Amino acid sequence: MMIIDKTDFNNLEARYRATLINSLGGVKQAVLIGTVSSEGQINLAIFNSLIHIGANPPFWGFIARPDVGHRHTLHNILNTGNYTINFPSADDYVKAHQTSAKYEPTQSEFDACGFTAVYEPGCAAPFVQEAPVKIAMKLVQKMDIELNGTSLVIGSIEQIILDESFISADGFVALDKANTLACAGLDAYYTTELKERLSYAKRDKWPVAL
Amino acid sequence: MMIIDKTDFNNLEARYRATLINSLGGVKQAVLIGTVSSEGQINLAIFNSLIHIGANPPFWGFIARPDVGHRHTLHNILNTGNYTINFPSADDYVKAHQTSAKYEPTQSEFDACGFTAVYEPGCAAPFVQEAPVKIAMKLVQKMDIELNGTSLVIGSIEQIILDESFISADGFVALDKANTLACAGLDAYYTTELKERLSYAKRDKWPVAL
Repeated sequence: MMIIDKTDFNNLEARYRATLINSLGGVKQAVLIGTVSSEGQINLAIFNSLIHIGANPPFWGFIARPDVGHRHTLHNILNTGNYTINFPSADDYVKAHQTSAKYEPTQSEFDACGFTAVYEPGCAAPFVQEAPVKIAMKLVQKMDIELNGTSLVIGSIEQIILDESFISADGFVALDKANTLACAGLDAYYTTELKERLSYAKRDKWPVAL
Repeated sequence: MMIIDKTDFNNLEARYRATLINSLGGVKQAVLIGTVSSEGQINLAIFNSLIHIGANPPFWGFIARPDVGHRHTLHNILNTGNYTINFPSADDYVKAHQTSAKYEPTQSEFDACGFTAVYEPGCAAPFVQEAPVKIAMKLVQKMDIELNGTSLVIGSIEQIILDESFISADGFVALDKANTLACAGLDAYYTTELKERLSYAKRDKWPVAL
């Protein structure tokens, strides 16, 4: 077993440390966030920090890096109040990763990376047509994390678009059926496989397969 | 394609809605958080909301539900200032899920669920011996999300304990090599498989496999 402690962190080369801490955070859902600027320019960017905040009302969050330079996603969300969260197919991982390149503000990542923008009534932001799961979000609150200049951007789920066959009788969404993409760190892409769903755990009775 | 919108949410049965919104959030790393109370009682609980906040300094967060009733984890973290984050092996998914049962404050989930508590100098909270990745955390900030009474608990990574063979030359931690557990919603457990790592995306050059 290897032990890396705080003193070691300071001696690590910056990129090595970023890769280590980012990838150590584990596998997460890869999502493409679609936005539109006040001037009508559409934008698409990959994020790996989707976080469930609550189911009633349905709130999700994500971590946005400081609103400087090329951070079009956060800028657009703050200006328009809405955005879409799209789960790309695992087959589209190279295109999804390509949205992380630094494009000019006037260039749409939809075009540059080979995705198609589609729209639904009530949401100005574009969805990704190729994504098997599409969600319309409305900005609710931006909480600044002063420790390092990042923000927790919280939105309410306004609309969910997906194939009915992904949803089980009890509401469970089997994203593995949708073959959605997972990721770790800034460059590693994963597929996932359902092992089992378990019953509610009780003190005197161990869970069994559902 | 099926469209579920905000009006539909209100008509969904509460448990169905919770299962839908939770599971829709996608696959995440399953982690066991180990804590100790001021009185020395140890506690272990499963969480699925680990979130990367920053690499320099290394900060991670997780979402804690309101500090009422059986929320021993948050209570202990606030009282002692430290905790451990342990990534259980995918083989231990039934034991890991069992830590979500409501045990009495005087009962240790380590004993009840079949995990072994181990300690390292400088961290009062117990680690899970069986976990292939163990991390010591120090509480840095609790940010209350007033929208629904949850909190974002932010801590600094103090120590990382893992097998050296999981770390690539550039710092990337291949958690699939450690066979760690992923989960979705409150009861679904997943394994993950690395598809590929990609090079840094550039505007004029598409990424290639690393």
